[in-house]
Amino acid sequence: MDFTERSFALGEIPVVLWTPEDAAAPPLILMGHGGGQSKNHPGIVNRARRFAAAGFTVAAIDAPNHGDRPRTPEFESLLAAVRAGEATFDDMHDALAGPVAADWAAVLDAMPAAGPVGYWGMSMGCGVGVPFIAGEPRVAAAVLGLFGSPSLTATAAKITVPVLFLAQWDDQLVPRADSLALFDALASPAKSLHANPGGHGDLPRFETDGALAFFSRHLM
Amino acid sequence: MDFTERSFALGEIPVVLWTPEDAAAPPLILMGHGGGQSKNHPGIVNRARRFAAAGFTVAAIDAPNHGDRPRTPEFESLLAAVRAGEATFDDMHDALAGPVAADWAAVLDAMPAAGPVGYWGMSMGCGVGVPFIAGEPRVAAAVLGLFGSPSLTATAAKITVPVLFLAQWDDQLVPRADSLALFDALASPAKSLHANPGGHGDLPRFETDGALAFFSRHLM
Repeated sequence: MDFTERSFALGEIPVVLWTPEDAAAPPLILMGHGGGQSKNHPGIVNRARRFAAAGFTVAAIDAPNHGDRPRTPEFESLLAAVRAGEATFDDMHDALAGPVAADWAAVLDAMPAAGPVGYWGMSMGCGVGVPFIAGEPRVAAAVLGLFGSPSLTATAAKITVPVLFLAQWDDQLVPRADSLALFDALASPAKSLHANPGGHGDLPRFETDGALAFFSRHLM
Repeated sequence: MDFTERSFALGEIPVVLWTPEDAAAPPLILMGHGGGQSKNHPGIVNRARRFAAAGFTVAAIDAPNHGDRPRTPEFESLLAAVRAGEATFDDMHDALAGPVAADWAAVLDAMPAAGPVGYWGMSMGCGVGVPFIAGEPRVAAAVLGLFGSPSLTATAAKITVPVLFLAQWDDQLVPRADSLALFDALASPAKSLHANPGGHGDLPRFETDGALAFFSRHLM
């Protein structure tokens, strides 16, 4: 299916929107990028185009302090601390989760979806996505993964929508046990774990087919 | 795609063969049933028909002491011991693995496949399938699952073909750690774990789509 790709700003939020041309009441997929990435990262753009070609509207935004948005001195310090091993991914996600959830709520307010809403987020997109989904009743299904942390267990237990969770079996950044524990903590009656060999950046291309099948099953 | 379904005996081995009508050099999928089941179990037949409709030749056989085959007094005693908790699934699989592998080798000898060969086996079909695949170079990809045992670790480490491994997160018969350890032990560079909530008998229907996508990717 043909689709259009359009970039614009919603207040301070840079947005890219992919719109299928011939879909009636298409579902909307929100895509949350990883740490240090942006709405224009190939991992976002290539998947967004696959989803749009299959009849989904897709929106990606730059998280605060990412992409086209200004970086605050506080965030620069936090980043430096993470790189030095003096702060954790949890610290970074904690700083971003509230603002990111507010951004997505603003996007959903401004562009009411014609169909059901899904969320896709890996790594930081999962770390900030778990609290977003737990608190946002408009999200009806989510693909999450490449992250896990004991600090997310209680929040994950509030999620009841269908979730496809992707884990890399040899992830050098996320302990395997933390990924499995996050999947385990989800209260969703319909949840699937897909795990594949390889490191944090080695998510196989065919898992995009899996995500598409999952979103089609639950949102179409 | 239309297909035919034909039952016959190959020596002492009862076989069902599903053949797609219009496929050129179709791959062959061997299906190994679970303990107490047979080649005619709905879980085998329904999946076999899906695979055949997608262009695969499919063969299912009754394992020794199952389906249309006679039960030996020794096997009756072993079954009673398993039911009484005095013998394990490992004991039952150990008794069957050699004969089952010989049966499949006879099937492959008698019906040389036009295309690559895959194997699908859950539960006992996994327990006897792991040694079969480890020793049968004609099998090029496998869907395994619903089983795990420390006694299979060394054999699993000899398997290098692509594997899709299915685990039920709340399996009441197979400890979760044993399933994950069996997946971990596979030496296959291309292996995927799919885990879903529910018990041993609750494998979701959509995992048949996943198996079909897997076999198509690796055998077509």
